[in-house]
Amino acid sequence: MTGKLYGVGLGPGDPDLLTLKAARLIGAARVVAYPALAGGDSFARAIAADLIGPNTREIVMDVPMSVARAPAQAAYDRGADEIAAVLDAGEDVVCLCEGDPFFYGSFMYVFARLADRYEVEVVPGVTSISACAARAGQPLVARNERLTVLPGPLPEPELRDRIAGAEAVAIMKVGRHMAKLRGVFDALGLLDRAVYVARVGLPDEVVCPLADAPETAPYFSMILMNKGEDPWL
Amino acid sequence: MTGKLYGVGLGPGDPDLLTLKAARLIGAARVVAYPALAGGDSFARAIAADLIGPNTREIVMDVPMSVARAPAQAAYDRGADEIAAVLDAGEDVVCLCEGDPFFYGSFMYVFARLADRYEVEVVPGVTSISACAARAGQPLVARNERLTVLPGPLPEPELRDRIAGAEAVAIMKVGRHMAKLRGVFDALGLLDRAVYVARVGLPDEVVCPLADAPETAPYFSMILMNKGEDPWL
Repeated sequence: MTGKLYGVGLGPGDPDLLTLKAARLIGAARVVAYPALAGGDSFARAIAADLIGPNTREIVMDVPMSVARAPAQAAYDRGADEIAAVLDAGEDVVCLCEGDPFFYGSFMYVFARLADRYEVEVVPGVTSISACAARAGQPLVARNERLTVLPGPLPEPELRDRIAGAEAVAIMKVGRHMAKLRGVFDALGLLDRAVYVARVGLPDEVVCPLADAPETAPYFSMILMNKGEDPWL
Repeated sequence: MTGKLYGVGLGPGDPDLLTLKAARLIGAARVVAYPALAGGDSFARAIAADLIGPNTREIVMDVPMSVARAPAQAAYDRGADEIAAVLDAGEDVVCLCEGDPFFYGSFMYVFARLADRYEVEVVPGVTSISACAARAGQPLVARNERLTVLPGPLPEPELRDRIAGAEAVAIMKVGRHMAKLRGVFDALGLLDRAVYVARVGLPDEVVCPLADAPETAPYFSMILMNKGEDPWL
């Protein structure tokens, strides 16, 4: 009997936003796996830290910072091999993933390598979009509104076209794309409808109008906008 | 001192997908409020049932089934008045909401009526989109992919244009729009890339290719599609 692989969403960062299922699985895990960025700390591990037992084995996938894909692919290849060895030995593995595993989540890369050979269960988590909207006090979408989710690194013309054609927008991974993004919202006359949220739920969280946002944003930051064409009342 | 209003996301239906924070707030609540549809049971209450104490007061907002907005608006007006009276008496109210409160959530209507007068905290929840993707074993978006969320009731030409121009799509509220939606995916040559999920996480859950989906879908059903232009490995 091979073990089972769990891909567990941890939510946006506040440990209180883990699901009951995620907390139980992590607390009972004998083996956990998670990515760490460029030899630094693992955000996923930090979120789950209080739940990981002292005798739990930890498989760390050290993912280098690089726009090239090959180094990250090699890191996930090695991590998947290590996880597979544990599963082959009949032990379950709980793979930790910030946010939701299938919404821009790192678990996808493990899933792509192992799902055809092992039993996998994905436990969904609260996304950063939901958390940012909650903290900003700004609903995302209601009734028959459409929501467009766009990564900040997209080219400026595409961002402009897609934001112009959308009713509600969430921009992920703002980071070093802040100047470009603010320019796009400004050019479209939507600056006053956009809100900026960084490091949601963490002690250094920032929530403010996009017009007042700092010049440089951390990777975990977002812009939310709803044109308000259809009032919610 | 007036009380505080909590808008608490319950996730897609499986009580195990409540967050730790939601479970704690509901368990400690002296007053909860929730919508019920057309005099029937409340799905929100059903998800949270095991956590609601025997002496907890329950404010039921009975929302009629109607495409006209006025009857639902009147129901939320009454509910907001009842909640406001409790808050004015210095007691907190925990408002239960399926899924995530600010993602097509019923709590928005309470929020729109009370947020300017009372302290409100929104607790985000797992969306049905994340849960459906997890159960279908089909990632939503990775890297710099864009996600478009569309309600099924939209007109056919708009659905066709938006699905054609998207990389990844989630269609909410499929319900009685199934034939129209399947026709759109078929016409675009995307039928074999689309998966159908109904009543995710509940005992009568259905997960299957869209091509094999039943003619009529329940309200809580979804279609997920990713064109797979950028493999995840």
